[in-house]
Amino acid sequence: MTNFLSLADVSNIDALIQSGLDAKANPFADQHLGKNKTIGMIFFNSSLRTRMSTQKAAQNLGMNVMTMNVGQDSWGLEMEEGVLMNGDKAEHVREAAAVMGRYCNIIGIRAFAELKDRDKDYREQVMHQFAKYARVPIVNLESATRHPLQSLADCITIEEAKLKSSLIPARPKVVLTWLPHFKPLPQAVANSFSEWMNARDVEFVITHPEGYELAPEFVGNARVTHNQDEAFEGADFIYGKNWSSYAHYGQVLTQDSSWAVTMADLRLTNNGKFMHCLPVRRNLKVADEVLDSPQSLVIEQAANREWSAQAVLKEILITM
Amino acid sequence: MTNFLSLADVSNIDALIQSGLDAKANPFADQHLGKNKTIGMIFFNSSLRTRMSTQKAAQNLGMNVMTMNVGQDSWGLEMEEGVLMNGDKAEHVREAAAVMGRYCNIIGIRAFAELKDRDKDYREQVMHQFAKYARVPIVNLESATRHPLQSLADCITIEEAKLKSSLIPARPKVVLTWLPHFKPLPQAVANSFSEWMNARDVEFVITHPEGYELAPEFVGNARVTHNQDEAFEGADFIYGKNWSSYAHYGQVLTQDSSWAVTMADLRLTNNGKFMHCLPVRRNLKVADEVLDSPQSLVIEQAANREWSAQAVLKEILITM
Amino acid sequence: MTNFLSLADVSNIDALIQSGLDAKANPFADQHLGKNKTIGMIFFNSSLRTRMSTQKAAQNLGMNVMTMNVGQDSWGLEMEEGVLMNGDKAEHVREAAAVMGRYCNIIGIRAFAELKDRDKDYREQVMHQFAKYARVPIVNLESATRHPLQSLADCITIEEAKLKSSLIPARPKVVLTWLPHFKPLPQAVANSFSEWMNARDVEFVITHPEGYELAPEFVGNARVTHNQDEAFEGADFIYGKNWSSYAHYGQVLTQDSSWAVTMADLRLTNNGKFMHCLPVRRNLKVADEVLDSPQSLVIEQAANREWSAQAVLKEILITM
Repeated sequence: MTNFLSLADVSNIDALIQSGLDAKANPFADQHLGKNKTIGMIFFNSSLRTRMSTQKAAQNLGMNVMTMNVGQDSWGLEMEEGVLMNGDKAEHVREAAAVMGRYCNIIGIRAFAELKDRDKDYREQVMHQFAKYARVPIVNLESATRHPLQSLADCITIEEAKLKSSLIPARPKVVLTWLPHFKPLPQAVANSFSEWMNARDVEFVITHPEGYELAPEFVGNARVTHNQDEAFEGADFIYGKNWSSYAHYGQVLTQDSSWAVTMADLRLTNNGKFMHCLPVRRNLKVADEVLDSPQSLVIEQAANREWSAQAVLKEILITM
Repeated sequence: MTNFLSLADVSNIDALIQSGLDAKANPFADQHLGKNKTIGMIFFNSSLRTRMSTQKAAQNLGMNVMTMNVGQDSWGLEMEEGVLMNGDKAEHVREAAAVMGRYCNIIGIRAFAELKDRDKDYREQVMHQFAKYARVPIVNLESATRHPLQSLADCITIEEAKLKSSLIPARPKVVLTWLPHFKPLPQAVANSFSEWMNARDVEFVITHPEGYELAPEFVGNARVTHNQDEAFEGADFIYGKNWSSYAHYGQVLTQDSSWAVTMADLRLTNNGKFMHCLPVRRNLKVADEVLDSPQSLVIEQAANREWSAQAVLKEILITM
Repeated sequence: MTNFLSLADVSNIDALIQSGLDAKANPFADQHLGKNKTIGMIFFNSSLRTRMSTQKAAQNLGMNVMTMNVGQDSWGLEMEEGVLMNGDKAEHVREAAAVMGRYCNIIGIRAFAELKDRDKDYREQVMHQFAKYARVPIVNLESATRHPLQSLADCITIEEAKLKSSLIPARPKVVLTWLPHFKPLPQAVANSFSEWMNARDVEFVITHPEGYELAPEFVGNARVTHNQDEAFEGADFIYGKNWSSYAHYGQVLTQDSSWAVTMADLRLTNNGKFMHCLPVRRNLKVADEVLDSPQSLVIEQAANREWSAQAVLKEILITM
């Protein structure tokens, strides 16, 4: 694997999921792979799980880790080509990426959508500029439109749940449901989860209020419904997430609290497991009773971020 | 040791002090203990000594270290249970602590008193919520009401001074004196020092202006006087610290500069050693002449933070 | 080497350059030297290259690294002696440096010029106070008046270019040219480059608009001209940098864009290589065409920061 920007960089999802489960069973077995190798983790935005889990995974593999908060530890970066740099950005990504690529064997980048200009966000400029100029493998630590380390952890969590429970069918019903929120959030997690679910052997349903349709390339073959109750019927996994509108880009069209997930909602499912990428605003998006119930997988899912990162870093390291 | 939140978590103070002195004599003897173990250090507030000394101690023990500045590297954390999270805090401690507990073998937390609501501060919500939900050992890196890593370093420093000087009696007189400051500071260091001194074989005196009484559970059996000169007479150790009022919670009742420690004050003592946890505002709280005199132990005391942290982390690691 | 504050701390430049080239050829050969040794990197200002390259170099040598952003991770530091500390700075450098010196085997410090008070900046108070009180070796990570790790990397880059190309004469012509900028920048890089070039066997020319004369102690034996074209004629290396006025301290006297470097300028040279310490504002200071041409050494030069840091740290470690 040379980059991990999206699902398109994965040649064999099953093998990658298995590699994550193997890492969980035996975290330090590949410590020789990362010896004298360094990952640089570059954050344009805040991070808790990604920062800690990726760092931990790298250390499990024997790597050194350097983190950098752009605009705080260092200065703002210009991403556009050919511009006269007389504004607030003191350095161009051409130099920043190329230089980091000389100090690091792998570079991880977190750069959220700005939710102002849809075309700009969906061009994934930051990831592509780094991939172009760094000349070392780039790992997406959540970009404007995707969060593939999360999606891989989600797949690992689903496989793990299936291994643990004979009640979950081989081809489970997985429902991605929109949740209410007062702030506009990116579509990255929802996009990415949809992209990966479309590549898995699951019955995949997306439910959200009107106006919250995801971009068609992410919806893929999913069934889409605006009726949350109907979507939940017989579901094995409920994946909750808020996102802002793609059509009316970055807007909050409704905060309808009936979309929040409660135990009453979960009772419509086939004893369905509840998943969320975290952070989650309790009682705004999801009721306490859901998050604290045995049906919630959210902590295990977050814990699996370590193993998804380790699987990806291992895959990159073995091809170096 | 499963947690290190306060003195109550210590089964044998003498052994812990000796372990610190042993670490100082031979810092890398226990490097195997921390192999493939990770400490996560979570800062809600600034830190210099605690950040560096605990990180160093962990590395001496062979551990990996991950640091996180809450609200800067990641987002604000909600500590209250059952609330509707529609404010500025994006994540609940239930998730944050549980997730960090999956990435880390030990978690250190720094969370100062807010000095607005005494009951809230003295409930030690942050520490207790992390201890409840992280499911791994929690180390107090200074909480609302205590700073036990500092107090342990203080004990180590006193024992060391006794070993070095035959002039200090077996049962020394130790005086905690209030110092003037224009800002309201927490009571944590003073509380904690009092708590530990009450458990040691010393003659313990606390002196401060009226209105600065510490909470009774921390004062314990100490003799309290408002006459600093009288308190200093024959003292072997003077421990200076400012704190805001506990009774008139968080208030600055006086800035009386006569409470600052000068050489004239030290001359009242039995060639007493001067201690302070640092940072110290020179000439506001303590005169240059005191801090730069051979009687000052402040640098050695700060250096001993490394060994107090190492003793505590070792104690936790050996029970894992 | 006990400190690395400026060229004056270097006993043999040629050997130090060779040590950097050796490290580049074989980065992990000296990993035993840093075992159980810790470098503390203290940043009063932002950093990308210095932060990452020095950290990487230290890790190549087997060291542990602790970084600290002053005023963000910790509090502001008072540098003046004998003051009443009743302002915004909570800790004095006497304590901060002394304590860090107990936790770290080497301390790196970045502290830019404030460009308000020339005498104060040129006194290099921060570096000297740390060197005085830390009692461990201090490495200059860019100070008010110098950036010697950069200058050493520059020397390594020039030597490397000479090794790679027989077209560069044994005694090359090296031109330091001022570049336009709208903000006042420190003189540190220009000063330091001049100091090192004066100690090398090169024909050294400095060119800048009137009023931008560097301090005489840095100009040394360089030929100074206000005619950039004339300076560039036959040059083997063009080193671009903006700096604010030393005479009219910290002022921007002109933003004359004709001083920006273009390919037309480079054509005046002897197929001259272009160098810049980065970050560089493209098309304001240097044209895209120059930075992206094969004549540009800027990425290699930044990459060599790792090896200059490694040479310096090794030199310090072997004398411990």
